[in-house]
Amino acid sequence: MFISFEGIDGSGKSTQARMLADTLRGDGHDVVLTREPGGSPGAEEIRALVLQGDPDRWSAETEILLFTAARRDHMERTIRPALDAGKVVICDRFADSTRMYQGMSRGDLRGLVDQLHDLMIGCEPDLTLLIDMDPETGLTRALGRQGAEERFETFGAGLQARMRDGFLALARDYPARVRVIDGNRDPAAVAADIRAVAARALA
Amino acid sequence: MFISFEGIDGSGKSTQARMLADTLRGDGHDVVLTREPGGSPGAEEIRALVLQGDPDRWSAETEILLFTAARRDHMERTIRPALDAGKVVICDRFADSTRMYQGMSRGDLRGLVDQLHDLMIGCEPDLTLLIDMDPETGLTRALGRQGAEERFETFGAGLQARMRDGFLALARDYPARVRVIDGNRDPAAVAADIRAVAARALA
Repeated sequence: MFISFEGIDGSGKSTQARMLADTLRGDGHDVVLTREPGGSPGAEEIRALVLQGDPDRWSAETEILLFTAARRDHMERTIRPALDAGKVVICDRFADSTRMYQGMSRGDLRGLVDQLHDLMIGCEPDLTLLIDMDPETGLTRALGRQGAEERFETFGAGLQARMRDGFLALARDYPARVRVIDGNRDPAAVAADIRAVAARALA
Repeated sequence: MFISFEGIDGSGKSTQARMLADTLRGDGHDVVLTREPGGSPGAEEIRALVLQGDPDRWSAETEILLFTAARRDHMERTIRPALDAGKVVICDRFADSTRMYQGMSRGDLRGLVDQLHDLMIGCEPDLTLLIDMDPETGLTRALGRQGAEERFETFGAGLQARMRDGFLALARDYPARVRVIDGNRDPAAVAADIRAVAARALA
């Protein structure tokens, strides 16, 4: 079972991914908690190459290629071996984030992202938990914890709102895979919803 | 005018690319001499990521993605601007090397290399000078100058022979673009042939 968490910055993805991993481990599952970009030694090197330094030094197209290279390595070295061993993989961001951020934020490259994904990755999570969040609240939370590498947070409120709309459209496009979770509540309430959805998927 | 040099390791590509650049500059052309993988600051960083460290740390597919990312950056930052300014671009290796080395050396990935190229690069040189060379001689020459980064040379004589055959097949597949030059002669004689071919192409 391969579960991804998606959503705008500050939506609580990482917290909820960690909470779900703890819950499932408590229920006796063998869980691998991972993240993108990164999640394997090679992919983490590619992440550093893209996210450090001048944010404009890569074009959107080059960035899409680099993130796809990182995803390929992550699939080969971390995700696929864990799934083959019968483990549950929980991933904080996956290809949907590339569809949104690289596919929408710097021009209309969504078609290119999808073609490249089909050619070089060709795999989707079994379940994607989309944490929906008011864009302004998400931005405030994201800016509060901004680190040196976190350039995604510098795009501003307009982009946050566009990304939220994009994620919701994605959920309508992939209704069998993507479940929308209301993230505008306290983390325990959000986690209870997620636990129920995940339990049904794992049953 | 975009000219690439291709051929197996030790075939004399880099020497001949440099000699042609000097000749064309002497004839009054504005020439940019560049190389792959690399050729722009970002692409050189990707080159270092791929070629340094354990040669087995990337799968062939991830390596193809990384080299295509480097090529995209090289095209955007170095090759396209030079061509737009009316310069002659001479490139030591280009996409044909990926078709051979990543497409043939680690399994049959030629179709994947071509699809990725069409999707993300979509451009070929106007003229490709393929320096044909006896594989054993090329290997001996390549090993004589082997540097820390030059892992391509470690594949051995069998691969050199297969790569030579592959390059010659490529020349048959693209007769309008690829010209085969006999590299088994002294460098001045090879350079004279190349100069004649380039002069006709530039006329």
